[in-house]
Amino acid sequence: MDDKKTNENKDLPIDRRRFLMGSMGLAGGTLASQIGFADDSAFLPPNSPPWTRSLGPGVLTNPYGRPSSFEDHVQRRSVDWLTADRIASISFTPLADLKGIVTPSGLVFERYHAGVPDIDPTKHRLMIHGMVERPIILTMDDLMRFPSTSEIRFLECPANGGMEWRGAQMEGVQFSHGMLACCEWTGVMLSTLLEEVGVDKKASWILAEGADGSHMSRSIPMDKALDDAMIVYAQNGEMLRPEQGYPVRLINPGWEGNTCVKWLRRLEIGDKPWHHREETSKYTDLLADGTSREFTYVQECNSVVTSPSPEKPWQRKGKYWVEGLAWSGNGRVRHVDVSFDGGVNWREARFSSVVLPKSLTRFGVEFDWDGSPQMIQSRAVDETGYVQPTYTQLRAARGTNSVYHKNAIHTWKVNADGSVSNVQIT
Amino acid sequence: MDDKKTNENKDLPIDRRRFLMGSMGLAGGTLASQIGFADDSAFLPPNSPPWTRSLGPGVLTNPYGRPSSFEDHVQRRSVDWLTADRIASISFTPLADLKGIVTPSGLVFERYHAGVPDIDPTKHRLMIHGMVERPIILTMDDLMRFPSTSEIRFLECPANGGMEWRGAQMEGVQFSHGMLACCEWTGVMLSTLLEEVGVDKKASWILAEGADGSHMSRSIPMDKALDDAMIVYAQNGEMLRPEQGYPVRLINPGWEGNTCVKWLRRLEIGDKPWHHREETSKYTDLLADGTSREFTYVQECNSVVTSPSPEKPWQRKGKYWVEGLAWSGNGRVRHVDVSFDGGVNWREARFSSVVLPKSLTRFGVEFDWDGSPQMIQSRAVDETGYVQPTYTQLRAARGTNSVYHKNAIHTWKVNADGSVSNVQIT
Repeated sequence: MDDKKTNENKDLPIDRRRFLMGSMGLAGGTLASQIGFADDSAFLPPNSPPWTRSLGPGVLTNPYGRPSSFEDHVQRRSVDWLTADRIASISFTPLADLKGIVTPSGLVFERYHAGVPDIDPTKHRLMIHGMVERPIILTMDDLMRFPSTSEIRFLECPANGGMEWRGAQMEGVQFSHGMLACCEWTGVMLSTLLEEVGVDKKASWILAEGADGSHMSRSIPMDKALDDAMIVYAQNGEMLRPEQGYPVRLINPGWEGNTCVKWLRRLEIGDKPWHHREETSKYTDLLADGTSREFTYVQECNSVVTSPSPEKPWQRKGKYWVEGLAWSGNGRVRHVDVSFDGGVNWREARFSSVVLPKSLTRFGVEFDWDGSPQMIQSRAVDETGYVQPTYTQLRAARGTNSVYHKNAIHTWKVNADGSVSNVQIT
Repeated sequence: MDDKKTNENKDLPIDRRRFLMGSMGLAGGTLASQIGFADDSAFLPPNSPPWTRSLGPGVLTNPYGRPSSFEDHVQRRSVDWLTADRIASISFTPLADLKGIVTPSGLVFERYHAGVPDIDPTKHRLMIHGMVERPIILTMDDLMRFPSTSEIRFLECPANGGMEWRGAQMEGVQFSHGMLACCEWTGVMLSTLLEEVGVDKKASWILAEGADGSHMSRSIPMDKALDDAMIVYAQNGEMLRPEQGYPVRLINPGWEGNTCVKWLRRLEIGDKPWHHREETSKYTDLLADGTSREFTYVQECNSVVTSPSPEKPWQRKGKYWVEGLAWSGNGRVRHVDVSFDGGVNWREARFSSVVLPKSLTRFGVEFDWDGSPQMIQSRAVDETGYVQPTYTQLRAARGTNSVYHKNAIHTWKVNADGSVSNVQIT
């Protein structure tokens, strides 16, 4: 019956206003056409499943609420072969199931070097010292008394997609792009704290150090600290989650997540970078000629289609909303195009969320699937004019040794059966 | 020592750049001054609490994360005397502990008329019928195939603050203003679905009905449906929480929360309002002359200071960041002023979040507390020029019988000991 309906409508002119009814073979259909859909007939009027005829639990059954049990499949995931131990590993954001631009705090990807510390905020201190007039040790209460700012900004591990540099194809957008999240971050501008301590005019770098067992540390240029770096204590309206740095972390908007030191306990002001382990043996970009790029902080313009994706196959012919995420560490996303033939032809996508600088931006485009294989790509351009590169362009510039800052145009192949594969078009 | 430091600095000119160090009596203080703070000396360098010397749990210990146990006090709360049963009651958002503008989904206030239904999304249907060319029954999968839109919008029960109409003073901002939240909502524009079904030109109203045991229903004017009403399936990036209407609800941006029917199962198109129970015996505004205002949908411009508040007293003299939330159902908030003397003198507050239409907006202002009692108020103006009224102005217009749409300027009295009381200045 579904096929019949599709066939009947196939040669009719499609009224653009009628998005679903024309060619999609709508499961529900009109009331008149419902009769033929055996698996849906139980839901014709009078449609009275149990929940329409009973009382549910009252308020405060969950003083801190949780998702429906029907959404239990939406969770962070990892791959065991990635690292030797989960104490120093990563989990991935389930991008295929997310909507809009805000990542729920419980689903933000995780990255630790010594597991999650369980910090008592009343006992945590943030010290700011070095080349300053007035070194200071702040309690969390002190920090809360400074003027606060809230900004919606993306957070991305620079290794996001890194496993695909040399052609590996991860199964699903959760693994190919899921070291990515976007939250509303609230805290104090780092520049405000630097004014408080009085920075030496010769100072040009800041070391940020975490309080966890790894004491992860990164060198941050003073320009960034005075621009938009934030000392953050809240995320999506509430205090930071433990795995996100509770009770306080650094956020460098648009920069690699590794620099956004969690469980922040110390900021040292100096006049040169420290060249610590996580900015020499790690988080440098090994180029084709054997040299390394160091301090490559910015997460450049990138995008990915999240639906369809291996997790979100197409079930039947007809209209779909093809959607995804775009972002740039250099500002706002200005434009996103989508291709269905592997980059030969492009269609302009529509932004379907608010467009903020250094934030995820949601885009989408309508597509009427005729059941033939498709090669779907997205290509983002940011407000600086930077265009997301192809794999060929990226590898020409940086070889194949690197695992960081991979932002090449990604391709999903939609197969004739609607399943979706991760393929590389160079 | 704390007092001594305050006294020493009292007569010095305050360097505006030095927010805390001047007069605040900073708990941490400079390294040099630390010595005197007995209760802080354990946290002087070398500061190595247990979490700095151990490994924590690894990734995926919580595939869906939770807040730190140190934040367990941040939860929705209710008052037992408010309603006869929790099945048909309300819980309140803990505004005092929230930051920024996004309300975490687990802390969004609850309002039910028959408890929370546990709906299987594969069995849920949304029917659109009545004065339309092509009545339709949609599955959730169908709905997901329409173009989607994400918007950050506030949600407020029209009874928010209603207990204070006649002078009652709730203890804390959670109860005085906590029928309020702000989320990123994702779904399909209602106008898109109306195009799909082909609305009769004579149609002017829509009935929205829920699938829960109460079948709560409201009449919505066609103008709103064609303007910005959304059929929403996601909230803050993930599928709606059960208590927020999972799997689908109506959102009428800027309008009373009661119209944003949850667990939406039916939209009937008609040419007059239905005058159902929740828009006649409830959710009408009883005026001084005994008549009622009906269909008073818009939540007009409002604001409240969330810190200080009864839940967030001041501990000692010195600098504070006085902050709060402002919102308007008619568009963007344009301006917020804060008074410290009960409305005699006003200071302009700074917006500390993104400013979006029909969204919460975070504002703040620095204040140097000398230990004397204060009467703190905030007053918002929206982009239409509407100014948040005083109690006197509100009561002159609408008497004291109503419990809906109370948006009078609110007053917190900061007492000499730093505690904060809810008082009314008319």
